Amino acid sequence: MRVIVLLSGGLDSATVLALAREQGDACYALTIDYGQRNRAEIDAARIVARRYDAVEHRIVSLDYGQFGGSALTDPALTIPTAPSPGIPITYVPARNTVMLSIALGWAEVVGAGRIFIGVNAVDYAGYPDCRPEFIDAFQALAQVATKAGIEGEPIEICAPLINQSKAEIIDQGMRLGVDYGLTVSCYQADDAGAACGVCDACRLRRDGFVTAGLTDPTRYSGS
Amino acid sequence: MRVIVLLSGGLDSATVLALAREQGDACYALTIDYGQRNRAEIDAARIVARRYDAVEHRIVSLDYGQFGGSALTDPALTIPTAPSPGIPITYVPARNTVMLSIALGWAEVVGAGRIFIGVNAVDYAGYPDCRPEFIDAFQALAQVATKAGIEGEPIEICAPLINQSKAEIIDQGMRLGVDYGLTVSCYQADDAGAACGVCDACRLRRDGFVTAGLTDPTRYSGS
Repeated sequence: MRVIVLLSGGLDSATVLALAREQGDACYALTIDYGQRNRAEIDAARIVARRYDAVEHRIVSLDYGQFGGSALTDPALTIPTAPSPGIPITYVPARNTVMLSIALGWAEVVGAGRIFIGVNAVDYAGYPDCRPEFIDAFQALAQVATKAGIEGEPIEICAPLINQSKAEIIDQGMRLGVDYGLTVSCYQADDAGAACGVCDACRLRRDGFVTAGLTDPTRYSGS
Repeated sequence: MRVIVLLSGGLDSATVLALAREQGDACYALTIDYGQRNRAEIDAARIVARRYDAVEHRIVSLDYGQFGGSALTDPALTIPTAPSPGIPITYVPARNTVMLSIALGWAEVVGAGRIFIGVNAVDYAGYPDCRPEFIDAFQALAQVATKAGIEGEPIEICAPLINQSKAEIIDQGMRLGVDYGLTVSCYQADDAGAACGVCDACRLRRDGFVTAGLTDPTRYSGS
């Protein structure tokens, strides 16, 4: 089956791409360049798409950073180095809604039956658009929003990692042979893809590898 | 109240902006440049936003035309000059889903309580994302997708024209003093905003003015 895989260049979406490939899907990888400060992530997405045999890889630019409101797009906001209560400042307003919408459009054009997204509710409980109820609501929307839905073949939204811990995701990826050295998770990786080691994304990734009892191939800046 | 108004530069969204202004809303006008062939529409949006006192007008570029699949973005496809059965080739896959998603993000950043969109189910029955069930599904999504929704103040999706005929929309706009000479509806207007007179959008607009018994200030190319 043709499927769209949202590919950020991080650990989760690389695992999802490998999963879809294992199922024998023809993967159309989609990266949204929404003005994220982490530019190395986009380079990583290119490499991962090639490595895991995406049929095509599209990078769609969206001038979204102009709105600000998130530490991931606004250099004036500091990326926190410790977990905070509530929705973190790294939340990008409506980001996953926007990404799934763009994926929905491409799915219609290429005739894809599924859209894969690597959201995860366990580690990112603070983000509204990483929860199962968000995925369900987007599924319901996709049904009525598209030509495919009207013609009786709704596009399915698949979030296979949504209930997994980071360690479970890593375990699964290792079983699939994912080379996590190609991925970049850090919110503020340097241009060469070296991670800061202190942001939430770095902490979650490190803890995941430790729990899984595996070695993280992440390169850290200054090391 | 702060509101986001999706503004295309066409007749419908100009009417919606005037409606929101009449209600006393502080309007944040948003135009999505998704690679539409009709570039004059975007210039018209700029003028309409100024004329109807938008607090701000943002134009967000999205490299969406690369997907193709619609006569509105792909110059290789001919814009039809007669109505056809089914979903027309001018349908842009998931366009309104994408536009509302981007609007949702901006709404979160500026703290807007409503998003206005000028979709219309009467004249555009062929487009899946112009129907009331689409708006309802997006409303349900907005509730779970955003910080605002989680914190108990969901962002409301308003489609005040959805059940109106083009003639009713025009009537209403005239009552509000909308200068329709500023708007561009044509799918393939020339760079100066002159309309072709033969596409579906031109036909619907002309029929609307005729039914309303009013003179359409549209300029046609070659006239």
